[in-house]
Amino acid sequence: MGRNYKTIEESDLHFFKALLGERLHADEETCRHYGHDETEDLSFPPQVVLKPETTEEISQIMRHCFREDIPVTPIGARTGLSGGALSVYGGVGLALDRMNRIIKIDEDNHQVWVEPGVITQVLQEEVANKSLYYAPDPASRGSCFIGGNLAENSGGPHAVKYGVTQDFVLNLEVVLPNGDVIWTGANTLKNATAYNLTQLMVGSEGTLGIITKAVLKLIPLPQRSVLMLVPFFKASEACKAVADIFKLGITPSALEFMERDAIQWTLDFMGESTIQLGEDVDAHLLIELDGNDENNIMADCERIMNLLDTFKTDEILFAESEAQKDQLWQIRRKVGEAVKANSIYKEEDTVVPRYHLPELLAGVKEIGSRYGFKSVCYGHAGDGNLHINIIKGDLSDEIWNNDLPLAIREIFQLTVDLGGTISGEHGIGWVQKNYMDIPFDQITLELMKGIKDLFDPKGIMNPGKIFPDTIK
Amino acid sequence: MGRNYKTIEESDLHFFKALLGERLHADEETCRHYGHDETEDLSFPPQVVLKPETTEEISQIMRHCFREDIPVTPIGARTGLSGGALSVYGGVGLALDRMNRIIKIDEDNHQVWVEPGVITQVLQEEVANKSLYYAPDPASRGSCFIGGNLAENSGGPHAVKYGVTQDFVLNLEVVLPNGDVIWTGANTLKNATAYNLTQLMVGSEGTLGIITKAVLKLIPLPQRSVLMLVPFFKASEACKAVADIFKLGITPSALEFMERDAIQWTLDFMGESTIQLGEDVDAHLLIELDGNDENNIMADCERIMNLLDTFKTDEILFAESEAQKDQLWQIRRKVGEAVKANSIYKEEDTVVPRYHLPELLAGVKEIGSRYGFKSVCYGHAGDGNLHINIIKGDLSDEIWNNDLPLAIREIFQLTVDLGGTISGEHGIGWVQKNYMDIPFDQITLELMKGIKDLFDPKGIMNPGKIFPDTIK
Repeated sequence: MGRNYKTIEESDLHFFKALLGERLHADEETCRHYGHDETEDLSFPPQVVLKPETTEEISQIMRHCFREDIPVTPIGARTGLSGGALSVYGGVGLALDRMNRIIKIDEDNHQVWVEPGVITQVLQEEVANKSLYYAPDPASRGSCFIGGNLAENSGGPHAVKYGVTQDFVLNLEVVLPNGDVIWTGANTLKNATAYNLTQLMVGSEGTLGIITKAVLKLIPLPQRSVLMLVPFFKASEACKAVADIFKLGITPSALEFMERDAIQWTLDFMGESTIQLGEDVDAHLLIELDGNDENNIMADCERIMNLLDTFKTDEILFAESEAQKDQLWQIRRKVGEAVKANSIYKEEDTVVPRYHLPELLAGVKEIGSRYGFKSVCYGHAGDGNLHINIIKGDLSDEIWNNDLPLAIREIFQLTVDLGGTISGEHGIGWVQKNYMDIPFDQITLELMKGIKDLFDPKGIMNPGKIFPDTIK
Repeated sequence: MGRNYKTIEESDLHFFKALLGERLHADEETCRHYGHDETEDLSFPPQVVLKPETTEEISQIMRHCFREDIPVTPIGARTGLSGGALSVYGGVGLALDRMNRIIKIDEDNHQVWVEPGVITQVLQEEVANKSLYYAPDPASRGSCFIGGNLAENSGGPHAVKYGVTQDFVLNLEVVLPNGDVIWTGANTLKNATAYNLTQLMVGSEGTLGIITKAVLKLIPLPQRSVLMLVPFFKASEACKAVADIFKLGITPSALEFMERDAIQWTLDFMGESTIQLGEDVDAHLLIELDGNDENNIMADCERIMNLLDTFKTDEILFAESEAQKDQLWQIRRKVGEAVKANSIYKEEDTVVPRYHLPELLAGVKEIGSRYGFKSVCYGHAGDGNLHINIIKGDLSDEIWNNDLPLAIREIFQLTVDLGGTISGEHGIGWVQKNYMDIPFDQITLELMKGIKDLFDPKGIMNPGKIFPDTIK
């Protein structure tokens, strides 16, 4: 672990109390509550939880912690899957729950100003009321915060057509580790004004500063969609079909892949019996097309159906109503939870150029059979983003703890060999950091560490994340 | 100017000659040729022009220059409008003309691998042969290089629907100032793997390293388009109509604004007489809609026509054929050249949230009338990106040299006050650097300078660009 930070003392608590009053929490229960996210069963409670309400309060907290050498971990809705919000060195847990205002929806310019604690789905619904669309929608959109989405560069099913979080960010207000406050850019669709600090902040996982306001781009809300669930007898054919759909020149608004177990476990988990899986079905694609013109959508749909005729598929299910669309999306969104409920597991968030998905999937299975583990795979196939859930099942603790990291290394190496990388949308955080030598060489890692040291010379900002233990 | 670099000596020439042979040019004519771009009439020749053909050669050049303290300026097609490719400290002019291979068009993954010296239009035509589309298209696309587009984060008319250069970049090979070679990311549509070095390089104007390969995203080529030229009796109404079109929920594939003089001067410059401007016409919008379905495009077109009925417009010209579309686009692309041919001028590349365009335009005219200069404005109105050409005309050299910088300061301050910034797609380069205190405060500028110093500790990489003279 290396670095020793100052432990929070009475005088620090006194300072925080004077600043925040009731919004300081040092009790064990609160600290434990803010000490875990959705990453396995990890628990790293902060020493104290602070709940600021303004940029100015955060600036003062950071100024104090910078001077006193206290580590600070920004904490959102704790839905993260890489441990980015865990207070691995204790210190201050900076909970952003109370900075949850939608400051302004600018209909004239198709922009929205938000604080980091706004729930993604709340934002989406608010702007949809004005026929506008904020597309990034992680599976956890009902509870995750925009701030966390920005920190991790979150994606979601609709990224394949509309882009990930980074594609919707125009400008950010950031409190730097020393308490200084900057804006990273301008509220414009184009910007050729020096270095892109906005995109440097997006995906930096709270290690460079705290995002306190975001100006986000909105687009016109698509008026219609169709959704279909396509069962394939071979998972590899489902993967192949993904690339072939794009080759038609069609960009679906979602193109999701689920292995048989992923969908079966989820149906069981939800107690859902209206959907039956055919006996020999190996995987599903969930395909959504959207737009404003019904005829146009149906024409694309027909071209996809003609393509699917060339694959071995079972009967295709078309969602007949909004309710059935919701049901299918519910199933897709619950997969992670269902897998989690089934066994101890580890989730990897691989991404490759999408045509290489069949090779990735085959490779994962081959590696699994050599190491003796089972995996359940699903994800955003249109983006080449495959979530690999490695299932503990009957494996001994010894194998799980000693051999699994080697198997994961092999999976990540394969991913990188295919032109991909080790995280598409979950981030590196705490659990993947010691694999960072696979996508990046030492020179590149040291350059990134140089950026970290520039922004955060004392190393107090979300320490213990992103960089492998070998990088000092 | 500050910094003194080593002057290139015999021993350096000997090293370069051994490496490059005939591809070293030290004659005055070649150096002068590579010493200017399209920025006013500025001339800053390098001491020697080198024309490497491989990443390895560039790495060796940089390693030598780093050791010997020789400044290096990467030079593309010299179509830049901010002086980014000018060798303001002499030294090595690194001309990328010979690194002009399209390495691979990956139809399976909708990606293309290119070297920096590929002409943008050549790339577009090559991928169009495979029904794929690379959208960014600066007015100079017939001669500019992809490398320069990446360095400046270039836009163009189609950015409004498809995005600017940064939106099409997946991964970059970069030679760092010390000669080290890195890849910035992965060849994937999503990436949540630490800091976004790819987007840090895009728009960094050759000050952080030399881009030697780029993996670019492609999209399906739209099959159809319609193009119309709409004359407005009031320029402010044309600006207003821009925002209103987007409020309909329609995203045109281009939405260009041209003041009367911009189009009239261009018609004169081109000797084009088939298009006549109505007497009281004040400005034009050039509106393009694209897609795959004719009916769909026509439906959107009709909604735009209905909207335009609420404005005071002259007769709308629809392009009847591909030839007429080309003609209208030619006129739009020639505006810059035509204005240039007319008078000494200065071009500013302001960008604001698009609803604020009328305020920006009115403000520019008001500032102009106070300082006594005329301006011709045109640009990518759909992005809020207004090119302001300040015309010298009869102004004395004294006013031009002494007062104009004050007027430009006022224009830029207005731009920033409206939520915008001082360059949308041309970059800061040499000519705008002393205005950088307007969009950014000292803290932010110093943070950017810290990034510069991290990548380029000896300051040899395209020195004299981006940072104001006040930043050390």
